[in-house]
Order: sequence, then C-alpha cells, then structure tokens
Amino acid sequence: MTLTMNLGPRSYDIIVKRGVLQESGTLLNLDRKCLIVTDAGVPKQYAEAVAAQCRAPVIVTVGIGEGSKSFPVYETLCRKLLEQDFHRSDCVVAVGGGVVGDLAGFAAASFMRGMDFYNIPTTVLSQVDSSIGGKVAINLDGVKNIVGAFWQPKRVLIDPDTLHTLEPRQISNGLAEAIKMACTSDAELFQFLEQNDPLENIEHVIIGSLQIKKSVVEQDETEQGLRKLLNFGHTIGHGIESTGKLLHGECVGLGMLPMCSEAVRKRLLAVLKKAGLPTTVSFDREAVWQAMQHDKKFSAGMADIVTVDEIGAGKIERVTMEALKARFDSAYMEG
Amino acid sequence: MTLTMNLGPRSYDIIVKRGVLQESGTLLNLDRKCLIVTDAGVPKQYAEAVAAQCRAPVIVTVGIGEGSKSFPVYETLCRKLLEQDFHRSDCVVAVGGGVVGDLAGFAAASFMRGMDFYNIPTTVLSQVDSSIGGKVAINLDGVKNIVGAFWQPKRVLIDPDTLHTLEPRQISNGLAEAIKMACTSDAELFQFLEQNDPLENIEHVIIGSLQIKKSVVEQDETEQGLRKLLNFGHTIGHGIESTGKLLHGECVGLGMLPMCSEAVRKRLLAVLKKAGLPTTVSFDREAVWQAMQHDKKFSAGMADIVTVDEIGAGKIERVTMEALKARFDSAYMEG
Repeated sequence: MTLTMNLGPRSYDIIVKRGVLQESGTLLNLDRKCLIVTDAGVPKQYAEAVAAQCRAPVIVTVGIGEGSKSFPVYETLCRKLLEQDFHRSDCVVAVGGGVVGDLAGFAAASFMRGMDFYNIPTTVLSQVDSSIGGKVAINLDGVKNIVGAFWQPKRVLIDPDTLHTLEPRQISNGLAEAIKMACTSDAELFQFLEQNDPLENIEHVIIGSLQIKKSVVEQDETEQGLRKLLNFGHTIGHGIESTGKLLHGECVGLGMLPMCSEAVRKRLLAVLKKAGLPTTVSFDREAVWQAMQHDKKFSAGMADIVTVDEIGAGKIERVTMEALKARFDSAYMEG
Repeated sequence: MTLTMNLGPRSYDIIVKRGVLQESGTLLNLDRKCLIVTDAGVPKQYAEAVAAQCRAPVIVTVGIGEGSKSFPVYETLCRKLLEQDFHRSDCVVAVGGGVVGDLAGFAAASFMRGMDFYNIPTTVLSQVDSSIGGKVAINLDGVKNIVGAFWQPKRVLIDPDTLHTLEPRQISNGLAEAIKMACTSDAELFQFLEQNDPLENIEHVIIGSLQIKKSVVEQDETEQGLRKLLNFGHTIGHGIESTGKLLHGECVGLGMLPMCSEAVRKRLLAVLKKAGLPTTVSFDREAVWQAMQHDKKFSAGMADIVTVDEIGAGKIERVTMEALKARFDSAYMEG
C-alpha cells in the first residue's frame, strides 16, 4: 500500500509492505553515496540489507537510546559525511527507530544545507508516527527535540516484518502513538483498538495511524496550528520522560490521561491497559513540572495543550500555566 | 531606501538608511526576548544600541573571526537560548559581519526548529552580500559553510554609518563581493566602479549590489541553478582562504581572475587594485587544491564553475575537474 504525503514540491510516498526492505534498491535512488545510520539496538541485518543495495554505502551505528540525539553525535555524523566526501547530491538513509530518524534527518537537513533523506523505520513507534511528517531534531541538556528542522524525507519504506524482532515493551511503546492519534482524530480507529488485538492487526493500525498523520501534516506542515493536535499527551509526557524511567510512548500514554473528559478517560484507560501500557506512575512532581517548562508550545505564560472531551474530536486550547498545573496535579490518582 | 526580497511567505524588507540602527525598536518587533549576537571585533555600542530598544535583550559576544562559526559556539548559542527560556515566538538579532550573521542565523534556523531572525550587518561585506539571501552556516574541520540551512531573515537593517569604524582592509574585503556581482551581472555597476571612488559612493555600491543579489535570490532561493552565479570567485577563493593568510573578500577577488576572459581580466585587475585588493598571492598549490575538494558545487567528478567572458554576462559551466585544475594552475602569473 502506498500513501502519498501531499506537500507540493516536498511531496513523497510512504510505502507499507511486508519485505519492502529487500526492495529498497529499486524503490529508492541508492545509485550514489549513501550514509546509512542505524543504532546498536537495531538488528544489524536491516542496515546491511539496505547497504547491499547501495552503490557506495557507509554504515554508521550510533549508541542505542535518546543519548544519541546529541550535539556530539550530530557533529560526528556531519564529520563522517565530510570525511567520506559526500556531496549534496548524495543521500542519508535512516534504518531504525525514532532516535535514528530524528538524528540522521537533522544531519541530512543541514549538511551542505540539505541532502536527500530516506527513512526506513523498524519500530512500531517510528512506523506509525515519527518517520513521516518531517520533524527532525536533537536534544540539549535533557530537553527533547530542542534543536532541529522541518525536513521531509524523499520516501519512506515501512516493512512490518521488521517488527518481529521487537520486545513486547517496544511494541506497546509504539502503540501509544497510534492510540493517541485515534483518540484525537479517528473514533473508528479507536473503536477498532477497543474491539481487536492491535498486534494481530498491526498493518491496519499502522495504515490507520499514517492516514491520520498524513492528513494533519498536509494541512499544517510546520506546526502553526492544527499539527499541535499530534502533541496530545506530550506536554506532561515529555516531563515524565525526562525522569528517564519510562519509554517515550509509555509517557505519552500517561500524559494523555489528565487531558481527557471523564468518559474518554475511562475508555482510554482500558485501551492503554490492553496495549500493555502503564496507567499509573510515581515521580518527583516538582522536578517534572520544572522539566516541562521548555515546551515549544508555551509562551508568555500560556500553554497550548490538547484536550479530548469526545473520542475523535481533539481540541487545541490555550490555557494559563495555572490551568495546566491543575490538570498536572490531578493526574494519576486512578488505579 | 527599502528593497523588498520577494519570496512568497518568506518575503522581507531590506532597509538601507544612515542611522537606522537607532530605529530598530520601531522597525523590528523587539517587544519580546531578543538574543543579540555580536563579536568582539564589532564596536560594543552597536549591539548596545539595539539592546536598548528591546524589551528583554540578552547579548552574546563571540570571538572575532571564522573560528566562531564552529559546532561548539553554535551549541553555546543554543544553550543560551535554552537557559534564558527563549521560545519559538522570540527572536535572534545578528549585529556584526558575515560570521555573526551566519552563526546567529543557523541558531535561529534550528532552535525549536526555527525562530524569527533579524540581521543588522555592520561591515561592507555583510551589507553588500551576506546579510540577505538566507544562507546560514557553520564550518567543520576547516571546510567553510558545510553545515547550515536556508533561513531567510524577517528584516534586514543596513546602516552605512557603521562603516566609519572599519579598517580600510575590511572595506576593501567587502568591496570584492560588490565587484563580483557587478562582474557577473551588471555592466553598468562595473563601469561605475571603474570610473568612481567606491568609498565616496558606498551607498550607491551597496544598493547596486543588493539589487543584483535580490534578483538572483528571488529567482533561485535554494541554489538549484542561477544562484550559483554568486559563487563567482569562490571555488578557488575558498581554497586560498583555507590557508588562513587572507580575508574572505581578498580570496574571492583572487579567485575570480582565472575565471575570466583576457579582456575581462584586464578590467577586473584594474578595479581590484583600485579597491585595495591583492591581485597576486603565493601559497602551497597542492594544499589549496586539496582544500577545494569539499566544494558543494562539485559532484561525480564534475564542478559547477562560474566564468565571465564579458562583463555583466556571467555563466555557470559544468566542467571536469581537469579543466578546473588547468584554470587553477594558470592563475596568478600576472604581476
């Protein structure tokens, strides 16, 4: 199945197909220098399978986890591109999860002021969400995605077969983003998640999520308005994530709960539990509240938050920091 | 005088006016947090004059020279923005020459994936050339502008009064870029430079140069084709610059000479000398040739070079590396 992201001159195709990794040589232009970025947690054979289809591949394996979305690792990638004589007509290929895509994408966005970028996501989280939409970034001093760019890939290949090698916790982690999008934008997909096993229907969940994200990004590529919907659960979620205890999707799941009406929360709790996601957490509330202050959606003492009072009908609301604090304080009283 | 750069949603005004520095508070939106970036070589009173017109200014003074266009200094700027709680609705203001504009502009382009950027150039070189057009970048391992973005300023203020504090060598350095643009694109301006003292007519030279650059950038914002014209003199020039002996404009002046017809070279030599620019140089030819290899206009063994066989009629030519080497080897035999 092919979805097209319609963004004028920056349009691109997203190809979802079992085994598509083996077709990258025909679906992507790899007849040039290709910097393949992967991480130590991704099975080596994925990057190697892509490399085997490139004319001049260079594989870089970064450390696993958010720690690689750093200035030093970003500089290392740029230096590698320089040392290996890459030019702006060459390309960068990310093979891995969201960390690899964000990091490699920012190197592609900025080396020689921009090169072609392909994304081959191999986790549920990146397949349903982070591999499309063009947000690339690194972290700084514990603040996520604070330095980056909007840089759309030239094509995205999604191979659900790569999910077989994932731990169950990583699968749950990714499902959180699918649940998030269903909750704000697609009552039908939400109902599907309530009534079916998401794992047995992973392709349906991936495609449903991509369709929501595609529609939102097409309407608001650079997050001037509507795209903020995709941040549902992320305001408090990023705060919890800064404690380093939980995975990104787990934090997003927790971050959604204080942003819902009573009725929505009840249904959401059931879906989160079914997906193997935590619904309670203990943390240092003051430290998390502090960590939340650098959010890109805050300014002049106001916060843009996303709330869901009815499944499929998420809203962006501008609230005072006090109102946000009240939601934050009310959270995680549920069992 | 106001020139408008017409780039659709990224359009902006360039205001050229003596004393305009003192009007920045009314001409720019400084009623927010403003990171003012300047360098140790720029008279302090310029950044302070702008700061006095901001609601919440933070001045950062970086070291003088190309050394500041580095990963560590870029990271320092991003950290300063983070520590001082800047948001994407705040702004960055460059007050200084090309180094400050390139560095501050890249921080503005990437912090929170992009903030408003204002440029207030205070050198001839940045006033005639680098402050407009949206190319921002840092250097890596001695290779110039290898990591960066296309990020247009929201407005540019050009105050020719700031040029009074410049050394004569810095003025000549800037005139080289004006001569470059006249040579490729404006026979009338070239003739003006032949017949008049450029210093006594600096506003005329600035405006003439900006008009050429505006026209080129409007037609080709991201350097797909025509904009390469502006690289006249830069291919060999950047190579010579890597030796660290000469200023950017001096190298560009030298870099133009092997790219002209005999007749053009004769006229160009006279104009360069009159502007106080060198026309001969000694350097390690092998080292410079090596340094030239990372040029963004090279790929697959071919180089896009700019040649001028007739004043005002620059051409972009794709040549083999051997052909470029022949031009390089022939250079600087003139006295």
